[in-house]
Amino acid sequence: MEGYSKCEANFVPLSPISFLERATFVYGKSLSIIYNDMSYTWKETRDRCVKLASALSIIGVNPGKVVATFAPNTPAHYELHFGVPMAGAILSALNTSLDPPALATTLQQLEPQVIFVDHQYIQTVGEAFKLLSHDKTSPPRLVLIGITRCTVVPMNTLDYNDLLSLGKDDFKIIHPNDECDPISINFTSGSTGKPKGVVYSHRSAYLNSLAVIFRYDMKKMPVFLWTVDMFRCNGWCFPWALAALGGTNVCLREVTAEVIFHSIVIHKVTHLCGPPMILDKIASSKTNEQRVVMPTRVDVIVAGPLPSSEIILKVKKFGFDIHHGYGMSEALGPMTNMSLRMSDQKEENNDERVKIRCREGTHNILMENVDVKDPETMTSVPSDGNTIGEIMFRGNTVMLGYLKNMEGTQNVFKGGWYMTRDLGVRNPDGNIVMKDRKLDSIVTNGEIVSTIDIERIIRTHPYVKEVAVVGKPDNVLGETPCAFVTLKDDYSLSSSCIIKFCQEKSLPRSMIPINVCFGTLPMNSTGKVLKYVLRERAKTIGSILGANVTLTI
Amino acid sequence: MEGYSKCEANFVPLSPISFLERATFVYGKSLSIIYNDMSYTWKETRDRCVKLASALSIIGVNPGKVVATFAPNTPAHYELHFGVPMAGAILSALNTSLDPPALATTLQQLEPQVIFVDHQYIQTVGEAFKLLSHDKTSPPRLVLIGITRCTVVPMNTLDYNDLLSLGKDDFKIIHPNDECDPISINFTSGSTGKPKGVVYSHRSAYLNSLAVIFRYDMKKMPVFLWTVDMFRCNGWCFPWALAALGGTNVCLREVTAEVIFHSIVIHKVTHLCGPPMILDKIASSKTNEQRVVMPTRVDVIVAGPLPSSEIILKVKKFGFDIHHGYGMSEALGPMTNMSLRMSDQKEENNDERVKIRCREGTHNILMENVDVKDPETMTSVPSDGNTIGEIMFRGNTVMLGYLKNMEGTQNVFKGGWYMTRDLGVRNPDGNIVMKDRKLDSIVTNGEIVSTIDIERIIRTHPYVKEVAVVGKPDNVLGETPCAFVTLKDDYSLSSSCIIKFCQEKSLPRSMIPINVCFGTLPMNSTGKVLKYVLRERAKTIGSILGANVTLTI
Repeated sequence: MEGYSKCEANFVPLSPISFLERATFVYGKSLSIIYNDMSYTWKETRDRCVKLASALSIIGVNPGKVVATFAPNTPAHYELHFGVPMAGAILSALNTSLDPPALATTLQQLEPQVIFVDHQYIQTVGEAFKLLSHDKTSPPRLVLIGITRCTVVPMNTLDYNDLLSLGKDDFKIIHPNDECDPISINFTSGSTGKPKGVVYSHRSAYLNSLAVIFRYDMKKMPVFLWTVDMFRCNGWCFPWALAALGGTNVCLREVTAEVIFHSIVIHKVTHLCGPPMILDKIASSKTNEQRVVMPTRVDVIVAGPLPSSEIILKVKKFGFDIHHGYGMSEALGPMTNMSLRMSDQKEENNDERVKIRCREGTHNILMENVDVKDPETMTSVPSDGNTIGEIMFRGNTVMLGYLKNMEGTQNVFKGGWYMTRDLGVRNPDGNIVMKDRKLDSIVTNGEIVSTIDIERIIRTHPYVKEVAVVGKPDNVLGETPCAFVTLKDDYSLSSSCIIKFCQEKSLPRSMIPINVCFGTLPMNSTGKVLKYVLRERAKTIGSILGANVTLTI
Repeated sequence: MEGYSKCEANFVPLSPISFLERATFVYGKSLSIIYNDMSYTWKETRDRCVKLASALSIIGVNPGKVVATFAPNTPAHYELHFGVPMAGAILSALNTSLDPPALATTLQQLEPQVIFVDHQYIQTVGEAFKLLSHDKTSPPRLVLIGITRCTVVPMNTLDYNDLLSLGKDDFKIIHPNDECDPISINFTSGSTGKPKGVVYSHRSAYLNSLAVIFRYDMKKMPVFLWTVDMFRCNGWCFPWALAALGGTNVCLREVTAEVIFHSIVIHKVTHLCGPPMILDKIASSKTNEQRVVMPTRVDVIVAGPLPSSEIILKVKKFGFDIHHGYGMSEALGPMTNMSLRMSDQKEENNDERVKIRCREGTHNILMENVDVKDPETMTSVPSDGNTIGEIMFRGNTVMLGYLKNMEGTQNVFKGGWYMTRDLGVRNPDGNIVMKDRKLDSIVTNGEIVSTIDIERIIRTHPYVKEVAVVGKPDNVLGETPCAFVTLKDDYSLSSSCIIKFCQEKSLPRSMIPINVCFGTLPMNSTGKVLKYVLRERAKTIGSILGANVTLTI
C-alpha cells in the first residue's frame, strides 16, 4: 500500500484563519462589515487583520500568548477574532458585564499580555487594573478602541488605529503548527459557580463554524445582525462562520428592538441570534396590531429557556422564524437544535406546540454524539420520554478543557464523554428534552423531580410572567418544591391560587410546590435565573413564615 | 496553560462513517434509498451496513485490506460505501466500462481481497478472472449482487444477501485509528495515460462531503438522483454527503432522459449531477416546444467541458439550474465551481454568457487554495485573464497519493501543491479559467497556444457539432494546430471553410489550423476526447495528403 503519504499539499491544519483568506479571494469586493456609517469589504477586512497580526507581533505578542478583549460587537472586536490567531496568539473575549473585582480576578487567572478595551468600558478596566496593582500583579498592556476622556487610562496605552498602522501589509500569517493548538478562551457564565476558562482549539473552532452553517441551512452571503455577544463562545463561532460564507456582519454597540427592526430594513438582515430574551425585546416593542414591514423573513436562533408561546407566536407574526438550540460554552455554543418551522406547528394544538418547543432536539453534523445516559453505568436511557439521565456529548466541537484546571477538566470528561450535569430524557422520536440542571433538580421522597416541568405548568397561568422552582430542605421528604413567581403587571395572586392551579393541571403530588413566593427573580447577564440565590432564600422561608403563605421575594 | 488536552471526548477521527450513525439518529424513519419498487429508511440502511461490515469481518476482510466493486448505482453499491469502511477496509469502486484485459490489469495492481460484482457485469469479471489465472495471480473472492445465469461464476462465489445474513447486528463498527488512513481508491479515467489508483483518506472524504454540500448550498434532506457513476471519485463523495444531510438516494441502473424526467416527477428530485453529456441527453429527449412539467426546479451539477449554449439554454428552460465545476480524481471530484444562476445570465449577451460558462470559478470552503502559478518560480500569475500558468491546488480535500506509485505521487506534489498539468489564467474577478491540458497545448513558433480557445471558436460555426484541436509536429514552427471536426447530421463542409471561418473570427495567425479533418471523435467513457489518439493521427496527415485538405478521420 506504499506510494502515498501526508504532506503539505494534502494536509493543512484546520483553522478559521483559512476562511478569511478564502473570503478575500472569492468575496473580495463584497461587504464584510457594516457599522453605523462605516463599512469594509472582505479584502479590506483581511488587510486590516494582517496588519493587526503584524502589529501584535511587533509589540511582542508571541505565539501561544493570550490577548484579551473587553468590548461590544464592534468592527475592531470582529477583526480581533482573526488578527489575534493570525499572530499565533490566543483570544479571550471577556464578559463586559464583569465588575472591576470580577475582572481583576479573571485577569489574574488569564494573564493576558495585552487587553483591547472599548472606550465605553475603560473606567471598569482602569479600576480593575488598580486592584491588580494593589495585588502586585502587573496588568496587561492596554490598547484603547475609540476615544475617551477618562483619566484612569494607563500611561503606555496604545490607540487601536495607531497600533494597526504599525503593522506590515506583507506580514506572514502564523498558522497553527498543530490544529489542536488553542485559538481562544471563553469564560463560562458561572451560573453554577466561579467562571471557568474554556479552551477552544483551531480544529474545533473551524469545524464548529461549519456546524453553525449546517445547523441553520445557511446559504452563501447571509447578512448577519450582531445581537449575540462576541464574548459568548466567540459569538457562537459566527465571526468565523460569516467569513466562511462571505456574509456581511452588521455590527451593533447596543441591541434594542428599534435597532433590530431598523437594521433589518436597511441592510436586509437574514439572520440574528442570541439568548431567548431577545424575543421578549422584539415582542414588547410593538403591539400585535402594529404592522411590521420587513423585506424578508429573518431567521432568529436562540438557545436557552424559551419565553411564553404568546411571545413566540407574536414574533413569528412579525416575520421571524425561530430556531431553538441547546448548548454551552464547553460545546462552543449551541450544539443541538430543534427547528420551529411553520410546518412543525401547523397540526398541533397549543400545549403540543409548547412541548415541541421545549425539546432540545438532536446533535448537529459536526458533533459526534449527544446522548442521555445513566452516569453510573454509562448506558443510554431508553427512548421513552420518561427515563431521566444525564445529557452527555462527545466530538470534535468540544472544548479542549479548562484553563489551568486539570482537575476541573478531568471531572467533566468521563469515559470519552463530556458530562453536562444537565438531566434529560430521550423522546421516542429521538429528540432530547432537557429536564433540569442536575444541581437544580429536587429529590423528594427519593424521587427525582424536574423543576423545569413544574415551571412549565405554572408559566401557563394567565397572571404569571416568570417562575423558578427550587428545592427547599425538608426533614422528612429530603426536599420539597418551592416556587418563586413574578406576576404580570397589575395582577396579584395568593400562593394557594398557584398551588390549586397545579392541582387542577394534574401535577403529581410530589411536584406541587409547598411554598410559593412572589417578586422579581435574580438573573445573570444572559437572563438565566440564579437558582443558587433562590435556594438560599428558600432555606429561610419555612423558619420565618411557615408553609403556603404569600411572601415577597 | 496546562489544564486541558486532546482526549476521546474532544477528538474523534474524522470519517464519513459518523454521518451514517447520525443519520440513523436524526433521520431514522426517513427514506435513505429508493430503487425501482424498493426503499429503505436510514435506520434500515445503517443496520444493513453494520451487517455488511460484520460479514466482511467474518469472511476475513481485515482492516487495511482492499474490497473492490464492479457495479452500477444500486442500493448494494451505496451500502458498500459505508459497509466496507465500517469493517476497517478500503473500498475501490471500479469503472464498469473496463474490458476484461483492462480489469485484469487493474485487479493485479489493486490486489483486492473481495470483489462485489453486479450480475450485469459478471461476464466481464469472469473473463478477467480467467486472464488472472493464466497469469497465476489468484483472483479475489467474488460476491454476486443479484441473480445470473452466466456459467463463468467461480465456485466459491457468495450471494450478496447471503453474505449480509452472515453479519451480526451488534457488530462494533471499526472507526479509523488515524483519520488520515485510507478509505478508498479511485482510478483515474486515464485520459493522459495508464489509470492510476488515487487514494483518499477518511479525513479528506469527510471534509469533501461537507464541501459538496457547501458548494451547492444544499439544504437538509435533498432528493438526489444517481446520474453520476459511484465509481467516479466515489460518486463525487455524494454517498457520504447524502448521509450527512439525511437525504434520499434515488438509485438508477441506467441513466436515460426518460428515467430522469420520470424520477423527478415521482420522487421530487432536487439534485442530480454528472459529466456534461448528461445535458445533451436531457436536451435531445424533447423538443423546445414539448412542455416539461417538473414539480420543482432541479439543480444539475456538471464538471467538464460544457456543451453548446443552445443546449444549456434548452435544459434551463425545462427547469434545470446548471452549476459548473472543475475538478479531478486527485481533488476527490469537482473542487471549484461557477454557479450559472439566472441572475448571472440576465445582463449578458450570448458571447459573454459562453465565456462565463467556461470559467472554472473559485475553490470551495474546504479546499485550502486553488491557484494559477508559474511552475518554475511557483509565483502566482497576475489576475489579468491573459497570463497562462499551471493550475495547482492544496488542502485537506486532496488525495493522499497514488497507490504503489511513490514516484508518481512525488511527481505531482511540488512545494506543497498538487500540480494539475492543466493550463489556466486568473481573471480580474478572481475566477480561474482553464485554457488547456499542459499535454494538449501547442507550442508554435515558441508561443503557447490554447487548443481549447481554438475549439471554442470553431464550435460556434453553425454546421459544427464537436471539435478537437491538437498539435501536429512541424519542422519549422515546432507544432501547428490541427483540427478534427464532427459536423452536424446532413451538413458538409470543406477544410478551407473552417480555416476561413477562423480568420473571419479574428483568431491570431498562430491559432488558425493548418490542417482540418472531418469525422467522429474518439472518446473515453466520460465523453472526454482522446487527444493522444488524435495526435498520432495528426502526425500521419501531412505525409499522406499535404496541408489544407478535407480528410475523413
